[in-house]
Amino acid sequence: MGVLGLGRMGAALAGALLGAGHDVSVWNRSPLKASPLLDRGARLAATPAEVASADVVISCLSTYDIQRPVLEAASPKVLVNLTSGTPEEARVAAKWAASQGIDYVDGVIMAVPQSIGTPAARILYGGSETTFAAQREVLSVLGEPVFLGEDAGLAALYDLALLGIMWSTMGGYLHALALVGTEGVTPEKFTPMATEWLSAVGGFLPGIGEQVASGDYATDVSALDINAAGLGLLVETSRAQGINPAVPAVLRELFDRAVAAGHGSHAIASVIEEIR
Amino acid sequence: MGVLGLGRMGAALAGALLGAGHDVSVWNRSPLKASPLLDRGARLAATPAEVASADVVISCLSTYDIQRPVLEAASPKVLVNLTSGTPEEARVAAKWAASQGIDYVDGVIMAVPQSIGTPAARILYGGSETTFAAQREVLSVLGEPVFLGEDAGLAALYDLALLGIMWSTMGGYLHALALVGTEGVTPEKFTPMATEWLSAVGGFLPGIGEQVASGDYATDVSALDINAAGLGLLVETSRAQGINPAVPAVLRELFDRAVAAGHGSHAIASVIEEIR
Repeated sequence: MGVLGLGRMGAALAGALLGAGHDVSVWNRSPLKASPLLDRGARLAATPAEVASADVVISCLSTYDIQRPVLEAASPKVLVNLTSGTPEEARVAAKWAASQGIDYVDGVIMAVPQSIGTPAARILYGGSETTFAAQREVLSVLGEPVFLGEDAGLAALYDLALLGIMWSTMGGYLHALALVGTEGVTPEKFTPMATEWLSAVGGFLPGIGEQVASGDYATDVSALDINAAGLGLLVETSRAQGINPAVPAVLRELFDRAVAAGHGSHAIASVIEEIR
Repeated sequence: MGVLGLGRMGAALAGALLGAGHDVSVWNRSPLKASPLLDRGARLAATPAEVASADVVISCLSTYDIQRPVLEAASPKVLVNLTSGTPEEARVAAKWAASQGIDYVDGVIMAVPQSIGTPAARILYGGSETTFAAQREVLSVLGEPVFLGEDAGLAALYDLALLGIMWSTMGGYLHALALVGTEGVTPEKFTPMATEWLSAVGGFLPGIGEQVASGDYATDVSALDINAAGLGLLVETSRAQGINPAVPAVLRELFDRAVAAGHGSHAIASVIEEIR
């Protein structure tokens, strides 16, 4: 196995492979970063091409721009591309790999470096299903592999979509902390209620998803106009308490637009009409 | 017990009280809405003042503006105010109640009407702790009562803060559905991964809360600059896939501002500095 790139994540990947008893050769622009891995039995490659003598090369560099010349120099037989980027960057890399006769899968890691090598680390893959199936066992060493489909951009697309949910939730949580904080309520007091509530909210998503899938936005539970009015109160209260209303304000705008488009008595799911 | 307002929620409250064997008198501007409750044994009050002869009056009207003249006409002995509004509206109502010698608690219902009367319905209260303690048993009939503090605006503040988390999460989820939908990924396929991921995200909140509480934003897991760059990719990809980037765009702006303020190597928690 070869690993290109020894940032925090690349080093964790190489470490998991070593831990599972694989021969691992590593390359990093600054070779100093390799030393803890060399102590554990990794071989240091002087060039990307040296790494490419391995059966399978995992690339985990910081950007596609940095990755491009490294991959061109390495030209491995099988490439597992775990560098973060857009779906389009992944598709361009897949095309290049195909033109070079390189077996290619593109993956994204839904985990922090600390959990690599445990089942808690889920890694999403798109690209060649044959290549994925052939490498599934070794990829399982890194985390739980999930194959999404033959489109090499799919993993990056899922990644961005899922991270977007995380950023939105964190933005909402930080806004909430700032809001209750204006009246002296501490994160310690507020957070248990927030996490319990968030878990209830997670239970609403499948129902919303079904409404989006069917386009049937009928509801007898919680109509959009009531929620839009609630967002209005939140924006107004945020301003009155002297905090930045940006996070709820953008949602209010979306909800208001959906109400104006005739979805006032429909479910919140109908807001997707203003997004897509 | 008296109930003012028989919208979906008010009717559910009155129904739960009837179910628990309480005498219930109800008032609604349009008395027609009362008929299913009258069949179950409720008494119809012709005026708000008639309801006020009950020991305790629960008010659940659509807005404070609608509620004001109703309460002035009713002038009950004990008022449990479950009308939705801002913390400031609740505080003004509490002041008015005090001036009238009315025992007052202000509550918000963290539940849909369907779950009223079950332990799944949590109701938050602020205001007079003595009044809350005296009425705790009957309030338990409606849902699980939680007392937050003597500030009558606290329940409304928590409510808005918690709903804000819900709206943000739903906005993020709908954005994600729209994004993966551009490549034909259905809600059915995407949602199980989204709910599982959201549950992992819920596990991050206590750590973020601790960092906000301490002001110590050091991280060796996930630095803000990497997340800000990821938000940039999400906005760019949303545009490239032809969907409205508004939800991630507002977060990117906040994250970028926090990076510009020197928090690039800090944890995401540091974004609160740009909100409060």
